[in-house]
Amino acid sequence: MKKLEKVHLVGAGPGDPDLLTMKAVRLLKEAEVVVLDRLISDDILKLIPSGTSCIYAGKAPGKHYVSQDEINEMLVRLAKSGRKIVRLKGGDPFIFGRGGEEALYMADHGVEFEIVPGVSAGSGCGSAFGIPLTHRGLATGVRFVTGHCRDNGELKLNWKSLADPDTTLVVYMGLGTIPEVSAHLIKAGLPESTPAAAIEKGATENQRICVTTLGDLPTRVVEEEFAPPTLFVIGRVVTLADKLGQPMDTDKLLEPVLEDGLTAHA
Amino acid sequence: MKKLEKVHLVGAGPGDPDLLTMKAVRLLKEAEVVVLDRLISDDILKLIPSGTSCIYAGKAPGKHYVSQDEINEMLVRLAKSGRKIVRLKGGDPFIFGRGGEEALYMADHGVEFEIVPGVSAGSGCGSAFGIPLTHRGLATGVRFVTGHCRDNGELKLNWKSLADPDTTLVVYMGLGTIPEVSAHLIKAGLPESTPAAAIEKGATENQRICVTTLGDLPTRVVEEEFAPPTLFVIGRVVTLADKLGQPMDTDKLLEPVLEDGLTAHA
Repeated sequence: MKKLEKVHLVGAGPGDPDLLTMKAVRLLKEAEVVVLDRLISDDILKLIPSGTSCIYAGKAPGKHYVSQDEINEMLVRLAKSGRKIVRLKGGDPFIFGRGGEEALYMADHGVEFEIVPGVSAGSGCGSAFGIPLTHRGLATGVRFVTGHCRDNGELKLNWKSLADPDTTLVVYMGLGTIPEVSAHLIKAGLPESTPAAAIEKGATENQRICVTTLGDLPTRVVEEEFAPPTLFVIGRVVTLADKLGQPMDTDKLLEPVLEDGLTAHA
Repeated sequence: MKKLEKVHLVGAGPGDPDLLTMKAVRLLKEAEVVVLDRLISDDILKLIPSGTSCIYAGKAPGKHYVSQDEINEMLVRLAKSGRKIVRLKGGDPFIFGRGGEEALYMADHGVEFEIVPGVSAGSGCGSAFGIPLTHRGLATGVRFVTGHCRDNGELKLNWKSLADPDTTLVVYMGLGTIPEVSAHLIKAGLPESTPAAAIEKGATENQRICVTTLGDLPTRVVEEEFAPPTLFVIGRVVTLADKLGQPMDTDKLLEPVLEDGLTAHA
């Protein structure tokens, strides 16, 4: 009998298959079964060889919702079948990916696993739209929170601590709660005029951005019909998106100093 | 005359070449000149073809320190030579990578650029040692700060906001200032007993971790002679490192249910 294979909990990054890690691509090619989140892009699914079993575990409109408990049990059951299992998660498995819960369950059931980090959506969206999350002079750091951590219907977040004008705030999964988030932050002292952006489907072909203010964010996403996945970036660094994120005016681009084929000196 | 090539500001991830993105690897293979940070690992350097010019831009012991202004000017000069330039930075270019400053300078000088995000050191270290940065019930979010943002010799951080027991705090480049960071956080209300970890060379072959408390962190890193790059993770999620981060006891691993060659049912 051979040893059981490790289960790999793999981050798929923000959506562009080109932003998968080398390790993620190799593991996807070698896998016998891939357990997928709903939000994995079609372009990434194309990298999975056609003979590989794919299991969708996630909430999709009109389909059975697979709960986290069911996913945990499924991973252990699949691992015990002796096959090579990849659990593919959007972004990074340890940043709002619930990878910790799946890992804990596997540890408790004697199943070996390995976490393969990925580019988190916050990084992907920042890069795609020219928002340097920790730009000197504008932010001393960046904070990732989820608009999804409800307790009895109420968002459980420390608003006083979050309303820090020197920190860039990135809100994941917050489209449904952005009116509350915006109101709480303003009440806790963050100016309404704080620059803010909504980014839909960041780091994919269909990405789009709305640059506005913290006060106007809730109205703007409704007016412009933003849909999930939408991520919010709140803080001064958003002002740079205009300059760093637009396609550049090609008339302003310089011509190369040398003709083709010659070696240039730096 | 052909159009000038875009400069690519590329995140190299936390150190393991396997954690480079597909796009980073392709750009490195196509580049004519690669401008490197000091902290890029040897294993990543090996991926650069031998004919490619490599320029080290960073502080190395006993060598000339290349300032940020000099790097900015160098990138523009190189771009104007008409060659394919990759500016390779550890981690993600927009999380403490000063990529924003380089991008702004290029925008101001008519040089087109593209940001390629990478796995940030915080994600890499969390995955490597089994610390799920935003584990439900232990943290509502994660915050990345740098221990390096001094103003007149003093660390300029909002300690009251940072001392939030519900948020995982990741401190980059903080080995020199961890005594101050620890003291300030405790003074601002974070218990001395808050779980904390120092991680040296995370996501590389030589990685190591010290799991301790916020109060003991400064002494422990001195006793155990931690060297840069060291990253700190502070918060309840660190308690999971014992369970999720240790090499598992292989005696406890289950044997596969089926023999080789048979198809299993999930």
